[in-house]
Amino acid sequence: MFPHRADAAVRTAVVLLASLSQLPNANAEDTGSARRSAPAAAASCASCHGQSGEANAAAGFPRLKGLPAAYQIRQLDAFADGTRQSAVMAPLARSLGARDRTQLADYYAALGARARQSGNASNGGDDRLALRGRWSEEIPACVQCHGENGSGIGAAFPPLAAQPSAYLAAQLRAWQRGTRRGDPLAMMQRIASRLSDVDVRAVADYFAAIPAGVAGPTAPTAAPAVARAAEAPSHAAKRPESGAAAGQGAFVPADVPIPDDDFGKVVQLGRQIFDDPGRYARRYVGNDLRCTSCHLDEGRRVGSAPMWAAYVSYPAYRKKNGHVNTFAERLQGCFRYSMNGQAPPLGDAVLVALESYSYWMARGAPLDPNIAGRGYVKPPKPALPPDRARGAVVYAQKCALCHGKNGDGQGANDGSPGFPALWGADSYNWGAGMVNVTNAAAFIKSSMPLSLGGTLTDQEAWDVALFVNSHERPQDPRYTGSVAATQARFHDADDSLYGQRVDGYVLGSSSVSPGHRPRERASGSGGS
Amino acid sequence: MFPHRADAAVRTAVVLLASLSQLPNANAEDTGSARRSAPAAAASCASCHGQSGEANAAAGFPRLKGLPAAYQIRQLDAFADGTRQSAVMAPLARSLGARDRTQLADYYAALGARARQSGNASNGGDDRLALRGRWSEEIPACVQCHGENGSGIGAAFPPLAAQPSAYLAAQLRAWQRGTRRGDPLAMMQRIASRLSDVDVRAVADYFAAIPAGVAGPTAPTAAPAVARAAEAPSHAAKRPESGAAAGQGAFVPADVPIPDDDFGKVVQLGRQIFDDPGRYARRYVGNDLRCTSCHLDEGRRVGSAPMWAAYVSYPAYRKKNGHVNTFAERLQGCFRYSMNGQAPPLGDAVLVALESYSYWMARGAPLDPNIAGRGYVKPPKPALPPDRARGAVVYAQKCALCHGKNGDGQGANDGSPGFPALWGADSYNWGAGMVNVTNAAAFIKSSMPLSLGGTLTDQEAWDVALFVNSHERPQDPRYTGSVAATQARFHDADDSLYGQRVDGYVLGSSSVSPGHRPRERASGSGGS
Repeated sequence: MFPHRADAAVRTAVVLLASLSQLPNANAEDTGSARRSAPAAAASCASCHGQSGEANAAAGFPRLKGLPAAYQIRQLDAFADGTRQSAVMAPLARSLGARDRTQLADYYAALGARARQSGNASNGGDDRLALRGRWSEEIPACVQCHGENGSGIGAAFPPLAAQPSAYLAAQLRAWQRGTRRGDPLAMMQRIASRLSDVDVRAVADYFAAIPAGVAGPTAPTAAPAVARAAEAPSHAAKRPESGAAAGQGAFVPADVPIPDDDFGKVVQLGRQIFDDPGRYARRYVGNDLRCTSCHLDEGRRVGSAPMWAAYVSYPAYRKKNGHVNTFAERLQGCFRYSMNGQAPPLGDAVLVALESYSYWMARGAPLDPNIAGRGYVKPPKPALPPDRARGAVVYAQKCALCHGKNGDGQGANDGSPGFPALWGADSYNWGAGMVNVTNAAAFIKSSMPLSLGGTLTDQEAWDVALFVNSHERPQDPRYTGSVAATQARFHDADDSLYGQRVDGYVLGSSSVSPGHRPRERASGSGGS
Repeated sequence: MFPHRADAAVRTAVVLLASLSQLPNANAEDTGSARRSAPAAAASCASCHGQSGEANAAAGFPRLKGLPAAYQIRQLDAFADGTRQSAVMAPLARSLGARDRTQLADYYAALGARARQSGNASNGGDDRLALRGRWSEEIPACVQCHGENGSGIGAAFPPLAAQPSAYLAAQLRAWQRGTRRGDPLAMMQRIASRLSDVDVRAVADYFAAIPAGVAGPTAPTAAPAVARAAEAPSHAAKRPESGAAAGQGAFVPADVPIPDDDFGKVVQLGRQIFDDPGRYARRYVGNDLRCTSCHLDEGRRVGSAPMWAAYVSYPAYRKKNGHVNTFAERLQGCFRYSMNGQAPPLGDAVLVALESYSYWMARGAPLDPNIAGRGYVKPPKPALPPDRARGAVVYAQKCALCHGKNGDGQGANDGSPGFPALWGADSYNWGAGMVNVTNAAAFIKSSMPLSLGGTLTDQEAWDVALFVNSHERPQDPRYTGSVAATQARFHDADDSLYGQRVDGYVLGSSSVSPGHRPRERASGSGGS
């Protein structure tokens, strides 16, 4: 029935049998931290995956070294039950008992170097899909779920870095064909189905070229992303089609490289800050959120408050602070509230860079305070009043995978920020716009889960938005000394849960002090 | 040959003869400062112009009271020689000797109240032509030459305020028909020829409704200009045709009223600052220039660095200071250099208002650093190298009328700013962009003299630009302590005369101290 696969299986089996007697000695070969000796069952793996599980790039056999143990165990389970089809792996997996699987997984996981280092992420080719995605087709950047360096996030999103290109491409094709299944929310099946062969090769080459354990995105001075974009094939510089997610008749930013000139350098810095404010604007941020956590597609996406629409809408009067705000002041608000940090002073290089990046993205758009696509696309009010208990169920099913059971997010395996915290000390504070259930419901409905925007019902979106925002989070920086007074002055009781009693607890009454404590200072300031 | 006028002349003569015996007693009637008794010849005037020369509005006989003496004398001369045709005035003027003319002119001039007071300028109807002009047809605002309250500027630009509407309308028609001539540079003949009957009535009604001696434009809080604009007839709210001056294919700001809402109030404040920074942003300006001195048509006009084009061009890298400037920082530069003042701090209400005004004007324009119409329209380099001596001749013929023989400008008769100083202590300083001869030539060629843009030859524009900028002016605020070093660092010797020797004097070596001395503090700070 599957002649190609049968041939491959026979070939592989020959290799396997020929090398089955070789026992890997990880201690002698590996420079990682693992010091325990290989379990006996590893002999079955070494012939294809290498003696330290370092992969066989030529044959397309994947790296095992450094893969999270839980991920490895799940793969062995999947091979055994056929969710992941492989003529070679199926009998091997079935032959391994639960104890063997755990030992193997722990062994290979421990071999991986995970320390975050700085360096160039990749020189492996077109980085657009990997780093930016193609949101017009609901394809997020690969790095959004697999970490900024492909180091993987948690057990559900495996490392991609340093896997053989042939292996990565084969997996994407397996998702496309349905010979690999069992992915959470069927995300990879959906995403892979939207990829062309060229896309598959580009993504596979990109991550294959990242050394395992190397971390850190493009350096701020070298701006390699600019150079890479400038060298991108011409098909990649086309204006993307306006997909369903882009909204009807909405402006679409030109998809052209940032020029490498005096202005472009500042635009590029703005893009870097936007992608990773904790690295490029550290002194002003107080959590691990990124600008792109809410402003998806690097600030382009309709439905998640695109920056081009915001740029052409300011200066404008804001009820929030009762005066006309320039765009720069509006940016300050993001740092103060959403990033739970400190507003950069007007004229600060961080604000100038973000303003320049937003301007650059918006070039060609008309100045228009009512531009189509501004802000969020509000879903209709649901049939039933939003309900926390229903929201908790939605959260567990659709959100906890990435944001964690406790809403505290997940960092990538190399220590870089991964999925943002949705409540708690490391999330947006009570002054942020996302505190309003309407905004949260709008954002969730249109864009969550990643790659599945629009799949929740309106009711689900409202319910889970209420659930998320009914947890404690850092104090509103406008705190007046009294939760009740702060609520009365700054919060709309119909839309914000600040000051409301939930399970006997008054939200906002946490001991989290008002205002900002930057991450890098937080550890040292606890005692005073 | 002129039956209508002959009838009018007969009617007028009857009135004149019937009242010839009445002698005016100005001292008893007038509250002005004049205390000397009327010359005998004034009896001839009183019958039509009123006993104190206060006009006869019903008959359309103009106010003489307060008119500049030189202007009155020139009118009597014009009536006598037929340059200004009037069957009644011609024989009367011819009957008056030089001494009579001087006595009469001095007498009526002294009767006028000229103190600057605050108050609403007018409730006399559509103020668009009077206050804004119609630049698409090269019609400047009337107030640009006649003063912001129609109080007149110097001897060449007579007061219009409180003249009978019928008189003002008759004069505009006389300019149209050529029965009044002799105006400097034939400005009024040209401007009047571009007015419709509706325009004539609107302008005449507007100025007739301003009480003589009342000064001060629209109050900042009441914003009557907004209300008036909102009540303007619908034809006035149309988008103006893009005239020759508007440039080929350039954006044309929508001609709609500023809304009276929270944002509109700030926009309106920005417009007021733009029109009269010495009043609305006094602490930041150091001279009597207005933003509209260089940015004509309230910042709209192509050829004079329109604000809508600037707005959509920033943020941008500027060689002038070697970094990316936001629009707010660009505005700061205007205060520091062109206004010879102090930069308002970022976030200051003055900057926010000007940014809001510029944004409002630019609504609908695409963000585009290369938008058509940005900056100045540079004339081609002339056949001969620019020459100061030729420029001095052009200046005397075409510029001195308004800007004064010594380039120090002219205030209006009520004390409000009139024509800007082009050099000297009250002009832009050596750091301003207008110091560059190329910019000055471009501005002059396209827009000077007012209403006569484009009439100078390229050679004349370059020559006079060189002449203007070869005079001393306030020190460059970037002054390093040495003219030579400041020149080397900040001035392009091919375009700026700073540091160059002119008639044995090194420009920039004046004792004018670097930096800013605000007008309101200048008088008190001389001794310290």
